[in-house]
Amino acid sequence: MDRVHNFNAGPAVLPRPVLERARDEMLNYGESGMSVMEMSHRSAHFEEIINTAEADLRSLLGIPENYSVMFLQGGATLQFAMAPRNLIPADGSADYINTGAWGKAAIKEAEKRGRIRVAASTEKDNFNHVPAQAALDLDPQAAYLHFTSNETIHGVEYPAEAEPTPPDGVPLLCDMSSNIASRPFDVKKYGLIYAGAQKNLGPSGVTLVILRNDLLERVPAKLPIMLDYKQMAENKSLYNTPPTFGIYMLGLVLKWLKALGGVEEIAKRNEAKAAKVYKTIDDSGGFYRGHARADSRSRMNITFRLQSEELEKKFAKESEKEGMIGLKGHRSVGGLRASTYNALPAESVEALAQFMAEFQRKNG
Amino acid sequence: MDRVHNFNAGPAVLPRPVLERARDEMLNYGESGMSVMEMSHRSAHFEEIINTAEADLRSLLGIPENYSVMFLQGGATLQFAMAPRNLIPADGSADYINTGAWGKAAIKEAEKRGRIRVAASTEKDNFNHVPAQAALDLDPQAAYLHFTSNETIHGVEYPAEAEPTPPDGVPLLCDMSSNIASRPFDVKKYGLIYAGAQKNLGPSGVTLVILRNDLLERVPAKLPIMLDYKQMAENKSLYNTPPTFGIYMLGLVLKWLKALGGVEEIAKRNEAKAAKVYKTIDDSGGFYRGHARADSRSRMNITFRLQSEELEKKFAKESEKEGMIGLKGHRSVGGLRASTYNALPAESVEALAQFMAEFQRKNG
Repeated sequence: MDRVHNFNAGPAVLPRPVLERARDEMLNYGESGMSVMEMSHRSAHFEEIINTAEADLRSLLGIPENYSVMFLQGGATLQFAMAPRNLIPADGSADYINTGAWGKAAIKEAEKRGRIRVAASTEKDNFNHVPAQAALDLDPQAAYLHFTSNETIHGVEYPAEAEPTPPDGVPLLCDMSSNIASRPFDVKKYGLIYAGAQKNLGPSGVTLVILRNDLLERVPAKLPIMLDYKQMAENKSLYNTPPTFGIYMLGLVLKWLKALGGVEEIAKRNEAKAAKVYKTIDDSGGFYRGHARADSRSRMNITFRLQSEELEKKFAKESEKEGMIGLKGHRSVGGLRASTYNALPAESVEALAQFMAEFQRKNG
Repeated sequence: MDRVHNFNAGPAVLPRPVLERARDEMLNYGESGMSVMEMSHRSAHFEEIINTAEADLRSLLGIPENYSVMFLQGGATLQFAMAPRNLIPADGSADYINTGAWGKAAIKEAEKRGRIRVAASTEKDNFNHVPAQAALDLDPQAAYLHFTSNETIHGVEYPAEAEPTPPDGVPLLCDMSSNIASRPFDVKKYGLIYAGAQKNLGPSGVTLVILRNDLLERVPAKLPIMLDYKQMAENKSLYNTPPTFGIYMLGLVLKWLKALGGVEEIAKRNEAKAAKVYKTIDDSGGFYRGHARADSRSRMNITFRLQSEELEKKFAKESEKEGMIGLKGHRSVGGLRASTYNALPAESVEALAQFMAEFQRKNG
């Protein structure tokens, strides 16, 4: 077997040219005589790597100068704790929208720190859609409004034009872990964006944080250094040793994305990939049933069911034999899930759609 | 240029066969059809990687069953915050020994959480030695006694037989970041050991934590998940997505260490490497002056000075031309520093000793 069709939900498929370059530079990066893993994080070589990654990110996503870019550790789970500790004043509260397993986890973690209001929840509908703006119960005094732009496990995503709007003056916070850089978005709308890298940006172990600088004024004294946005921003992610190799890989992924035309181009490709799978579901006459409501379908994680768990197991098993891996749904919700991130080639989606049609023909 | 002589203080040199294997497996690990970076952290392949790393670590270091092994993120700096938050009771205090930049940083971070007593400090001697047991002012009621077994920046190290002994019943905590797995040590002496991987164990972005399980009972409620030893231990480092590639690299380093004879064998090699450099210093008639007192010399980071900063700069510059990198001392203390971790080949030390003799001949 060469390379599989990788539908993993994260860590996930990486662009082949990125892996090839990492392979070729493994023992000697540039003319350094070292692997990137063996370099000081304060060396000229690594400074160039991290500065280029930041510059490419700023140009790809259109990040204005009044935002800090940080490469941290601990994944979204650490951000769930950091955001409220840095940004909710002692006597304040924050609004959260609960759209799935990750929205819920963010709320649970934030509640350890202070008062959290749930502005909307779709839990009673088994998280099959995102709430409309009109359905939000918003506090105009909230420290911020937090939402999850794409729910990896339930496969629901905010359409770009339907993301929530907070009351005037309330910063918008977004866990963008699973759809960042998959379509254009206006950074200026947000106070804070964070994303674990392991879906659209690189390997696990790096967390991207984009923060509007005026919010740094809220950071209280005496936070642990590694949880302190101010320390991290002022030291440009180099207070201590960052995950150097992960940042290098993220930088290579950004270069790949730039070369193919940036987020506008990848958005078209992502749209086409997801459309192909959803069409197969919709054309199946009920053999495949999508979990998400049509207006909230994720372009990144396509969740669907078959008539029985037995058939779902059979699907997962037989697709794996055909070199398609990661199609089993998350253990907490069952069913099937195809993750179709930026780096997933169109050929993989083609192979999946063909397999789905064939599987239906045999088992329908 | 092929590979340099890498005297970096961390991130640092890795064993060449480890890098070669990572290179060869970059696009297809085993028969998986994926890079390790593209695997689910809950896949059978990755489970085998993390379980093998833990098993190899347990056998190499002799870690008893009543200790948990965790692969976390955030480096020693996050451990500086985690240890006091998890292990000092609300009304308690802890003892710290201050032997250098890292011991001091641990104290500063712990003081944000609660009462800290400094059991000894060598700061007035510019951190040129480790304090004797008799010099410690120990609190028999302390929540724990914390020390740093090797100070990377000042180049002082506790000899194995001179590590501090806490009062009966007081757990011993050790920041072992820069000398773990460099010599045999008795895990049973410690309540908690932690180490950033980027010196002797692998790349940056992974932090090893070894914790005696009875201490888990002290962990208070409502800690952030990523700072909670109990959550991390119970979930075997898989509460959320761990730094999968870093853990894989650490596993490869452990296999390399096992194959060459384990910590007993590497200890002999480390001893011989350090002895060679210190002998060059001692034989130089004062041209080179070691920073650490003879009884506290580090086998991992050899710090020394020349007669002038100008000469030190010349040394750093000319050695780099000869393919020896990382010899400039830390920006906070100046001078020169040769880091001689496990993976540094004897040939590199040989080259350094020759260069030192030649440099003295020309400039002495």
